[in-house]
Amino acid sequence: MAIVALAGGVGDAKLTDGLARILPDGDLTVVVNIGDDFEHYGMKICPDLDTIMYTLGGVANPETGWGVMDESWHMLAMLEKYGETPWFRLGDRDMATHLLRKHLLDAGHSLTDITQRLANGLGITQRILPASDDDHATMVDTEGGMTLAFQEYFVRHRWQPIVKRVWYASEKNAVPSDAVLRALDEAEAIIICPSNPILSIDPILSLRGMRSRLENRRVPCVAVSPLIKGQAVKGPANKIMSELGHDPSTQGLLDFYAGLIDGLVVDSGDGVNSDEILESQILMKSTADRQRLAREVLDWAGSASLSK
Amino acid sequence: MAIVALAGGVGDAKLTDGLARILPDGDLTVVVNIGDDFEHYGMKICPDLDTIMYTLGGVANPETGWGVMDESWHMLAMLEKYGETPWFRLGDRDMATHLLRKHLLDAGHSLTDITQRLANGLGITQRILPASDDDHATMVDTEGGMTLAFQEYFVRHRWQPIVKRVWYASEKNAVPSDAVLRALDEAEAIIICPSNPILSIDPILSLRGMRSRLENRRVPCVAVSPLIKGQAVKGPANKIMSELGHDPSTQGLLDFYAGLIDGLVVDSGDGVNSDEILESQILMKSTADRQRLAREVLDWAGSASLSK
Repeated sequence: MAIVALAGGVGDAKLTDGLARILPDGDLTVVVNIGDDFEHYGMKICPDLDTIMYTLGGVANPETGWGVMDESWHMLAMLEKYGETPWFRLGDRDMATHLLRKHLLDAGHSLTDITQRLANGLGITQRILPASDDDHATMVDTEGGMTLAFQEYFVRHRWQPIVKRVWYASEKNAVPSDAVLRALDEAEAIIICPSNPILSIDPILSLRGMRSRLENRRVPCVAVSPLIKGQAVKGPANKIMSELGHDPSTQGLLDFYAGLIDGLVVDSGDGVNSDEILESQILMKSTADRQRLAREVLDWAGSASLSK
Repeated sequence: MAIVALAGGVGDAKLTDGLARILPDGDLTVVVNIGDDFEHYGMKICPDLDTIMYTLGGVANPETGWGVMDESWHMLAMLEKYGETPWFRLGDRDMATHLLRKHLLDAGHSLTDITQRLANGLGITQRILPASDDDHATMVDTEGGMTLAFQEYFVRHRWQPIVKRVWYASEKNAVPSDAVLRALDEAEAIIICPSNPILSIDPILSLRGMRSRLENRRVPCVAVSPLIKGQAVKGPANKIMSELGHDPSTQGLLDFYAGLIDGLVVDSGDGVNSDEILESQILMKSTADRQRLAREVLDWAGSASLSK
């Protein structure tokens, strides 16, 4: 069953890992948010691509959810010796990813091709696709009139500023890659992972033509809620939904994804009276949880009870 | 006593270390060859600056003579996992130097200023100056018609090709930095370290105006031989001297440096009948050797027996 999963960061890596474990090789394509991507010390850093890649490659740091396991920080310590105070932690192994990616981008390769090459190196048999080969940086206007690039907002300011508006530096110019469009053409179901809908999924939806492409899908699309009792499992999903006028609730998610999904998987007790709702245990604490939730999502997406 | 030392790589780092240990803070300025500098994975690598800097900063790898002590290679291993086969070994700590240097160059800082900043980070109290802020890459034409950038010749091909000609990519355009010219103006003696005269010292001499500046000096200039019984202590000094028609001998060095030096320190037994020759033990196996040789060179440069 050809599956396309739209994904952002850490929580999504868990669900894509579950999907990867139960789907045959080649069946899973993960389309990854690039709104978080940024340059740091001249390197190209793609946090969500890296998190998905390290997770599917089996080298993710299990404690943080991001970065590489058994990471060392010798380069960073030396940078600090030179008087630098990097606000993004650059691990030694992780650095190879940023360095090679930037080097290949400068040599004219697309982010799609580079991601494939990196994934091959890690022995990954699923397809990981950046949502776009264009720049599509997420920008955040905050209360008090600051405009922050995403990582400044998220890492440097630890998502504490109150958000007034989210927009994209590319405005209407960035498009989904051909590989993404082909994957959507071939998909038998689409999964929206339990990401922050505004900061991880909307950057994908906002690519030119993407929203209408998904609205006109002929296959089921199921989202998994990032909220449990109105709270984000991790990160600012409920905070930013509230700040931007979306109710951080099951109904708020149904409204946010209106026209885009046929079903929403929510935590037990978080359901509302709708055919579009499946209640389950959405917190993934173990590999078994990841596989169980992935199985439920796939079964439901494949069942006749969904409208598509 | 204000001293300017012209220096290349590993052997020179030992003598500059000896000089640094016996001269008062602020008295030593090391003018460093930049002909070896190159870009690798988009980083700016300055092998001789790094070797001098790590040595004076007390963090040099004592076994290799280059790189940082207690170095780790996690980034390199990850690059190899990605299918890369880097021919220049990028250590994790060393990587911070290349990364920060490139980052600051891209931001418009001069190599001189960047070198100062890096040296400050390592607590170095001597002045380390790149010979020029311009590009001045050493190029090597080999038998068989290949033209190699220096590091390709030196590292990738391990200096095995027979050299027909050495030239500089900048041709006549690169100039010594203002800081170098000022240091020469203020110097009370000039030391040419026991470098490869062709590959480490000539790139400095070939900067526009540099040779005449040294020919017209009003202070003594003493060179230390890189040869012992006609053989290089390390590297291709005698090989490349022979290939380019210079006798790899004390007399060959006197001819090579004619007009530029007032004295040449050679190993015991390597002397020729000339007032310009001082015999000593030039092999530096220990810190004590470094200091002893530095002291002898300085004493001789300061003595009335030299012509300047």
